[in-house]
Amino acid sequence: MSTVNIGIVGLGTVGAGVARIIKRRHEDFLRHEGVDLHISRVASRNDKAARELGLASVFTTDWHDVVNDPEVDIVIELIGGTGVALDVVKGAIDTGKHVVTANKAIMATHADEVLGMAREHGVQLECEASVGGGIPIIASLERSLVSNEITSVVGILNGTTNYMLTRMAEDGMSYADALARAQAQGFAEADPTADVDGFDAANKIAILASIAFNTRVTLSDVHSEGIRSISSVDMDNARKMGYTIKLLAVAKRLPQGIDVRVHPAMVPLSHPLSAVNGVYNAIYVVGDSVGDTMLYGQGAGAGPAASAVVGDILEVARRIKEGGRSIGSTTTERLPILDQNDLSARFYIRMRVADEPAALASIADVLATCKVSILTMSQHGAVDGVAEIVFTTHHARIKDVMTSLDVVRTIKSVRGLESVIRIEGVE
Amino acid sequence: MSTVNIGIVGLGTVGAGVARIIKRRHEDFLRHEGVDLHISRVASRNDKAARELGLASVFTTDWHDVVNDPEVDIVIELIGGTGVALDVVKGAIDTGKHVVTANKAIMATHADEVLGMAREHGVQLECEASVGGGIPIIASLERSLVSNEITSVVGILNGTTNYMLTRMAEDGMSYADALARAQAQGFAEADPTADVDGFDAANKIAILASIAFNTRVTLSDVHSEGIRSISSVDMDNARKMGYTIKLLAVAKRLPQGIDVRVHPAMVPLSHPLSAVNGVYNAIYVVGDSVGDTMLYGQGAGAGPAASAVVGDILEVARRIKEGGRSIGSTTTERLPILDQNDLSARFYIRMRVADEPAALASIADVLATCKVSILTMSQHGAVDGVAEIVFTTHHARIKDVMTSLDVVRTIKSVRGLESVIRIEGVE
Repeated sequence: MSTVNIGIVGLGTVGAGVARIIKRRHEDFLRHEGVDLHISRVASRNDKAARELGLASVFTTDWHDVVNDPEVDIVIELIGGTGVALDVVKGAIDTGKHVVTANKAIMATHADEVLGMAREHGVQLECEASVGGGIPIIASLERSLVSNEITSVVGILNGTTNYMLTRMAEDGMSYADALARAQAQGFAEADPTADVDGFDAANKIAILASIAFNTRVTLSDVHSEGIRSISSVDMDNARKMGYTIKLLAVAKRLPQGIDVRVHPAMVPLSHPLSAVNGVYNAIYVVGDSVGDTMLYGQGAGAGPAASAVVGDILEVARRIKEGGRSIGSTTTERLPILDQNDLSARFYIRMRVADEPAALASIADVLATCKVSILTMSQHGAVDGVAEIVFTTHHARIKDVMTSLDVVRTIKSVRGLESVIRIEGVE
Repeated sequence: MSTVNIGIVGLGTVGAGVARIIKRRHEDFLRHEGVDLHISRVASRNDKAARELGLASVFTTDWHDVVNDPEVDIVIELIGGTGVALDVVKGAIDTGKHVVTANKAIMATHADEVLGMAREHGVQLECEASVGGGIPIIASLERSLVSNEITSVVGILNGTTNYMLTRMAEDGMSYADALARAQAQGFAEADPTADVDGFDAANKIAILASIAFNTRVTLSDVHSEGIRSISSVDMDNARKMGYTIKLLAVAKRLPQGIDVRVHPAMVPLSHPLSAVNGVYNAIYVVGDSVGDTMLYGQGAGAGPAASAVVGDILEVARRIKEGGRSIGSTTTERLPILDQNDLSARFYIRMRVADEPAALASIADVLATCKVSILTMSQHGAVDGVAEIVFTTHHARIKDVMTSLDVVRTIKSVRGLESVIRIEGVE
């Protein structure tokens, strides 16, 4: 039996959840794992949560008190962001403490730095809760699947947008109504930018790509598009074509480098990711030995995130107990990040076009000139002389598609380029 | 950098797969993990595979040569069964070697013994490949999800039967045709007993239940029914009712003890497990903090199993490098295993009945007397004076259902009790 002292910085919903699990399951952890987890210090802006959790006696408003407490073995950083949180993580490592964090921003932008520091100081740094809530994706990529050369990681990593897209697909809601519903349910912030513009998912796929491909991928490497332009018309068209629309976070290892991006995509209804609905997340991983695997679960919320944080705490505690020196891990490759323009993809393109005989021919001509090959075309009933045309393309160079669309926009009979959405086989 | 010497016992498809991964990715493991994996001894019945793999110089036909080799750090047991394989595992632990095994039979019947020995000798014993091929389910239950009180583990754990049931559901095949197809594709053995009678899945759910609930569950504790009695008529009826039929391996923690069983079940089409088709496996886990999670992937085959074995090898190698003393894990609870008769379930019951006015009344009367409450009843067109009747029940005590069916069988107008299948909400 060994006592492991925990210092928690940040007592929001996740921090409170962590404290509750440790309290509720203390005897189980002692009996099953031989680990006596003890919360010896908590820092937060005010003492309300600490009082409610019976932790008033170890409460402080100054995070330095946690990081500098010689009794604390593991610092749990649950503030978020890259301001004070980064100081906490680095400060803790500097004083020789192990760190467990749920901080996606730090791990997507400063992973090399903090993991390098952890390795230098021989301490552990775990971050399972930074991606996919309670889904054990990081541990799986770092351990069970590490025997594989991973070729592809495709995730639904943002619960807010997945909830919205599910409401649009299942209930025919507009984007605006789906956002309002998500906000009313507490699934979306008043300012939904981080979610709907794809930044949250971009942070997470940067983390997963780094681990899966053992190379440095940071937030700024991720090409990112959000879901603001998705309409219920597109959702209808997707279903008719055998697809649904999901905000995908994609990381692929290609011979020439890493393709990493976040964007809405048409996903075939036959693919397991198409059935991941509501606030659920899932990560589809393809490896050279394991083949296709998928991990699915709740990607957000106090319970799932706290589950992952306490899982990390117990892992660190076991290793403290075993008495070895932590080796740590940093990425060892420096694979190039590929420019999306140079890659190819299939596209769904919807536009409003004057119902004139020559219109279609001139659009087809532009696409052909730009080497964008059309797979299907369908035209929907004209209203007031304007028809809606939907094209799907074969694989085409993305740069060529964008160039062709710039020209299409200038065609007089084209009244509006409504949607351009990638079609993924999710292979 | 540290050299870790591997001794492999059993060079069948999985053993050869392991050797190939170690050869192919040797430089990656060295660079990324700082581990120099070296196959220093292999034992097999003949030297064919060893010669093909370039391992002729370290080949032996006597497994003792591997276990007693002082240079070997980790013994990889890939023979299977509980005969020689158990001697290998125990022999390896006795000589202070770490063990990685894919052996479900040993882990479902002798886990306490071998894990206890490993703990005593301070060596690691890993067995990820024993359940679900390359799916990281054991590591996830032991680590990332260990913060949870797990309440339910429901798996599709046998690829052969899932392939057969998928063919029956999608192509309308009979059981016999589906079995013949599975055998032709190499997914089923000439003697399919272990798969179709549920024994393979029973071994695996015993292992998962032990880990998830931290209590001793062995093969003999698992109530087991196979799929031999499932017909295409049942599959059709299931679909009409909004279900599909899967061979489920279920382990639930109830207030009074552990409910553990393998049987075919109607699974709602809205549940993620219903979409797990072909040779794929999946495990649906519910925990008090994490909520619902599912892990999905290929449950069999040389690649996935070798992926899991090498993942375990690298985990052991990292811990050797870190220099701590392995603590090991054995179950610490002794929860009672519940008798299925005392539990309750919902049932689908199909019978052939003489098309007489009194027939239905007498069946309904028997069910009511036995406290089995009918939820739905449907009667299908009589042929030659015999109709097919399908009942679904509310939750009823299983013993009562079985008693009622014993009486129903004796009713003169009942010509045949064709199918009795559980209906699972998979909650």
